[in-house]
Amino acid sequence: MKKNRLEAFSDGVFAIVITLLVLELRPEGPGVPAHDMIVQAEPKVLAFALSFVIIGTYWVAHHRMLDFVRTVDRTLLWLNLALLMVVAFIPYPTALVGTTHGAPAALQLYGATLVAANAIGTALWLYGTSRPHRADHLEAGQRTRVALIHLAPIVLYAIGIGLAGTHKGVTLACYIVVPMFFVLGGSWMDRRLVRTMERSCE
Amino acid sequence: MKKNRLEAFSDGVFAIVITLLVLELRPEGPGVPAHDMIVQAEPKVLAFALSFVIIGTYWVAHHRMLDFVRTVDRTLLWLNLALLMVVAFIPYPTALVGTTHGAPAALQLYGATLVAANAIGTALWLYGTSRPHRADHLEAGQRTRVALIHLAPIVLYAIGIGLAGTHKGVTLACYIVVPMFFVLGGSWMDRRLVRTMERSCE
Amino acid sequence: MKKNRLEAFSDGVFAIVITLLVLELRPEGPGVPAHDMIVQAEPKVLAFALSFVIIGTYWVAHHRMLDFVRTVDRTLLWLNLALLMVVAFIPYPTALVGTTHGAPAALQLYGATLVAANAIGTALWLYGTSRPHRADHLEAGQRTRVALIHLAPIVLYAIGIGLAGTHKGVTLACYIVVPMFFVLGGSWMDRRLVRTMERSCE
Amino acid sequence: MKKNRLEAFSDGVFAIVITLLVLELRPEGPGVPAHDMIVQAEPKVLAFALSFVIIGTYWVAHHRMLDFVRTVDRTLLWLNLALLMVVAFIPYPTALVGTTHGAPAALQLYGATLVAANAIGTALWLYGTSRPHRADHLEAGQRTRVALIHLAPIVLYAIGIGLAGTHKGVTLACYIVVPMFFVLGGSWMDRRLVRTMERSCE
Repeated sequence: MKKNRLEAFSDGVFAIVITLLVLELRPEGPGVPAHDMIVQAEPKVLAFALSFVIIGTYWVAHHRMLDFVRTVDRTLLWLNLALLMVVAFIPYPTALVGTTHGAPAALQLYGATLVAANAIGTALWLYGTSRPHRADHLEAGQRTRVALIHLAPIVLYAIGIGLAGTHKGVTLACYIVVPMFFVLGGSWMDRRLVRTMERSCE
Repeated sequence: MKKNRLEAFSDGVFAIVITLLVLELRPEGPGVPAHDMIVQAEPKVLAFALSFVIIGTYWVAHHRMLDFVRTVDRTLLWLNLALLMVVAFIPYPTALVGTTHGAPAALQLYGATLVAANAIGTALWLYGTSRPHRADHLEAGQRTRVALIHLAPIVLYAIGIGLAGTHKGVTLACYIVVPMFFVLGGSWMDRRLVRTMERSCE
Repeated sequence: MKKNRLEAFSDGVFAIVITLLVLELRPEGPGVPAHDMIVQAEPKVLAFALSFVIIGTYWVAHHRMLDFVRTVDRTLLWLNLALLMVVAFIPYPTALVGTTHGAPAALQLYGATLVAANAIGTALWLYGTSRPHRADHLEAGQRTRVALIHLAPIVLYAIGIGLAGTHKGVTLACYIVVPMFFVLGGSWMDRRLVRTMERSCE
Repeated sequence: MKKNRLEAFSDGVFAIVITLLVLELRPEGPGVPAHDMIVQAEPKVLAFALSFVIIGTYWVAHHRMLDFVRTVDRTLLWLNLALLMVVAFIPYPTALVGTTHGAPAALQLYGATLVAANAIGTALWLYGTSRPHRADHLEAGQRTRVALIHLAPIVLYAIGIGLAGTHKGVTLACYIVVPMFFVLGGSWMDRRLVRTMERSCE
């Protein structure tokens, strides 16, 4: 399988998942007044926005990872499909969080899904940048740094899962801060890494 | 990230959103006669058609904007994702307008979504055509003109939102007239702009 | 807009619509025995298969048409979006036919949707192959022949619509025979046309 | 039709089907506690994961097949659309298996769908690699070997269908073992075939 077809297929799945999220917002039957429908949908809208940004972050990260991968073999293919399966699953915990207004079990499943995505993403990165898959412009220390950047959010997600039963606000903050970091970040990140990536991505 | 991948991903989201709209038309249970189902679905069909044309207009505008953008950085990437998030949200207010037969709150949420899309679209345009992103074939005055063309509909949408409680027909007319202008327009638009665009788009 | 992006966007919409059809088959709540669910879903499965083949036929026809079009302007763009809107609408009458087990009103809406698709498709063809859009390898008489091939099914659909209240079987036969002709056909079609097309399509 | 457009369209359908699977997991109304919702959703989640891996396997197989096909004609086009129709149908038996917790009729429909996919896939392979479609780098004996690899799972699926009423576990094992073989396999497969494929696919 050529890399560009793997990328195109993955892009397709990311684009579809991110757009399907809105289907969970479907309004109830015609008996309810519009204003009440909207008020009731508020937690669902927030869950939609959070998952949209998170999936967007995964999409960007996925791109950057594959930029450093040169060849695709069977293992990489299936690691990638495993990552896509977890990403494609996100609308379910999203809907659960929205429908239950952030019940502990729903928030925990949501966090566990993100943990799985980051864990598989790290495995994909480490495998894809092992010899002989690694592209030449990836410098030695960067491989480890990117792996740590993918692993770090797992700590936050784990805290979020642990506190979901008692401190819902902290849990949500843990889930929100990760994409925010990637959206706004850069200054916090290893500048050398960003430079190399920018060089190969633009 | 290369521009063509950003475009392909955005095209994917536009194509999916525009096609998902039909899912809001799903017929009720098997008890209702077919003729009644169709009559009851009429407001939903009109909302489907309106949103289809509006999303189509955004897709065309998005293309034309990106034609004048040369490089993609992190900020442009996230401005673009913000725009896609608002566009991906459109099926929800569309369903709300259809289900409630155009209740004021539904029409206001619909208008507010369009306002957000045009505001973010304008920001995307201004950022993407600031130095050093700007492509060489964009002439000085055109940058401002296109920004105004993206901002102008916001006035109409605001009128629509303000009158949704009292003059439903005017509100709908405000929402319909904007895409109609872009579909039929051209003679009203700055001819020089169109010429430059046509030159770079064909 | 470049032709290849119009084609990619259209392909996306066709691929999404054809795949969304399955969502109308969603099984009822967990109370019903599996065997009964399947038996009750039979009309929906048949409607799914019919619409899948019809949309597949439109996709193939759309491709072949655009092969003879050289340049895309605003009018062609919006004719194309109008065609896509009608195609994106097909899942609704499909669901209606399936849910109501082929009630007359449902069959008539289904037929009317196909009439609209063929009419807009013919307009798209005639506009796209008028000067200066026409590609050089389209010979004079073929333009008219293809237009007739797109118009001919409308006669059958009209018969189907007219007889939906009294002869459901004839209506269904009218709707089925058109895609069957395009799937199996070729020997019936103008051989010269097919040859030119094949030459430019392979 | 050019081969790369057939591939792009097929990729699109595969990406959409694989992502739509999650829609069957939609949580029930807001009355149910989150924890109960998740427990009840477990069979649906398992069905989601199984179908995700199976569709992923079909996608990979589809790619590899088309690598050996040189030209696309009308017959190949419609064989391909027939295969896509069966693949696009998979979410329905998946939902049925999940909703009914693996009722015999649901498992049988699921198995029958896989049988149809493999049968049409084999026909697509044999037709696409018959003269003059066959690419030059396909060696004589490999054509038959690949056909057998596509046909072999049908035996397992048939056993699964036969035992669905009495040995649900065996049925599920039959359905799971096939994609597992393709995900983990390679050592069991004809090494020469894999070598040729790898050579043309990387």
